[in-house]
Amino acid sequence: MFEYKNQIRVRYADTDQMGYMYYGNYATFYEVARTEMLRHTGISYKELEGMGIMLPVVELKSRFIKPALYDELITVKTVISEKPTLKISFEYSLYNEKEELINTGNTILVFVNMKTGRPCHPPTVFLEKISSYFKST
Amino acid sequence: MFEYKNQIRVRYADTDQMGYMYYGNYATFYEVARTEMLRHTGISYKELEGMGIMLPVVELKSRFIKPALYDELITVKTVISEKPTLKISFEYSLYNEKEELINTGNTILVFVNMKTGRPCHPPTVFLEKISSYFKST
Amino acid sequence: MFEYKNQIRVRYADTDQMGYMYYGNYATFYEVARTEMLRHTGISYKELEGMGIMLPVVELKSRFIKPALYDELITVKTVISEKPTLKISFEYSLYNEKEELINTGNTILVFVNMKTGRPCHPPTVFLEKISSYFKST
Amino acid sequence: MFEYKNQIRVRYADTDQMGYMYYGNYATFYEVARTEMLRHTGISYKELEGMGIMLPVVELKSRFIKPALYDELITVKTVISEKPTLKISFEYSLYNEKEELINTGNTILVFVNMKTGRPCHPPTVFLEKISSYFKST
Repeated sequence: MFEYKNQIRVRYADTDQMGYMYYGNYATFYEVARTEMLRHTGISYKELEGMGIMLPVVELKSRFIKPALYDELITVKTVISEKPTLKISFEYSLYNEKEELINTGNTILVFVNMKTGRPCHPPTVFLEKISSYFKST
Repeated sequence: MFEYKNQIRVRYADTDQMGYMYYGNYATFYEVARTEMLRHTGISYKELEGMGIMLPVVELKSRFIKPALYDELITVKTVISEKPTLKISFEYSLYNEKEELINTGNTILVFVNMKTGRPCHPPTVFLEKISSYFKST
Repeated sequence: MFEYKNQIRVRYADTDQMGYMYYGNYATFYEVARTEMLRHTGISYKELEGMGIMLPVVELKSRFIKPALYDELITVKTVISEKPTLKISFEYSLYNEKEELINTGNTILVFVNMKTGRPCHPPTVFLEKISSYFKST
Repeated sequence: MFEYKNQIRVRYADTDQMGYMYYGNYATFYEVARTEMLRHTGISYKELEGMGIMLPVVELKSRFIKPALYDELITVKTVISEKPTLKISFEYSLYNEKEELINTGNTILVFVNMKTGRPCHPPTVFLEKISSYFKST
């Protein structure tokens, strides 16, 4: 299991007239969270695209428990619980400044060869980096 | 069952550097689809807020089958399959101009009394409007 | 002079917690307005990109006079007052449902050859279409 | 003169199919920059709203010199060159990782009393904080 935490502040642009973060913007928080997580492994998402691999999202789930409010610094805990194959799955738990769980989400992304447009295996260098988090005991 | 169709064009603002509609923007397409569906019943979402009722989203699911591309006119078929109670559930199917299914989604929204912040029953006038679509045979 | 009108509805996603359309989202309204205007000439922006020409924005100005509110159907009047050269300039005037002027804006875009990344002249077919609006008397 | 620097990373959500940051998203970068600048004075924008003062934008200008690209860490230099009156003006200069100037912008915001909806003077506590940056010599 690979776990990572980062913090993202709710912008005015993120809010809607309910005074909450708009429900569509959590997807962007998930994006930032997994991007920083990948960067932490040593291979950034940008570098993956540089290798000709892109990672479109094929599935998104989100449960909205409490609103995220303007200017709050949200903590996103991201987990990759299974070693990536053709797919990689991220689970997100968002906490507000009072450390209350406000949102949980899940995204599944597919490794796609940008030339062929077909699903593909993740690059070896990426698998090596990430497998260190899934060491068998 | 209540079914409604409308069309939304993919804006340049919606695209990302993959050349696809960004995955977070489907939530906005769902919003536009259900808003127009509600307007069609005779009670708009804006009028519901005027009655002191808001409808925050508590659950979002999305499956991305094919990309939505810039300038495509996407057809969104929205279905309310169950009569709303404290919650209302919308199912979405998105089709591109070739009539290919490109995305399916689901959102659950809760009726909330804006004064108390608590879940509540939908207004009678809204239930009356919407129940005509769920006539028993 | 070439003048065009279209209507765009303010989405919940567009609002912020002030209850206004977020100031950054007017740029998207401008985009939709000029896109529909170009489509009306017979050459859509998508077709221009298909010809290897893109039109990045080099200048944006906006004056916010009154707020655009949720669910309002905004009328955008777009004007091209000068025949395009290497640049094309659009002026926008936005009106709310009470026909009050709420926003004025201006964008300057440059024709760029996507292969060379350099500014270029607009395609002849586009100039022909658009010049009909600038007939000398 | 009051000058402040901060850094904001370009998200995938910010990009468009040109591979650039969408021109409408610079307004959000400006928002984040001035928000962090205000926080630095000791009175955050959120606290201003708590005092019943909001700051709608009345004017926006932007010049796009070079594109901001995905995943770049953009440095935003923000300047308040004149002591705020009923209005406050911010000037922005954006630099990419090569320290090239890629964008300049300017926004004018008005202090508005949220109860009356009328322009008002900034709160004394805010003026005190900010006047320290405009000390006469």
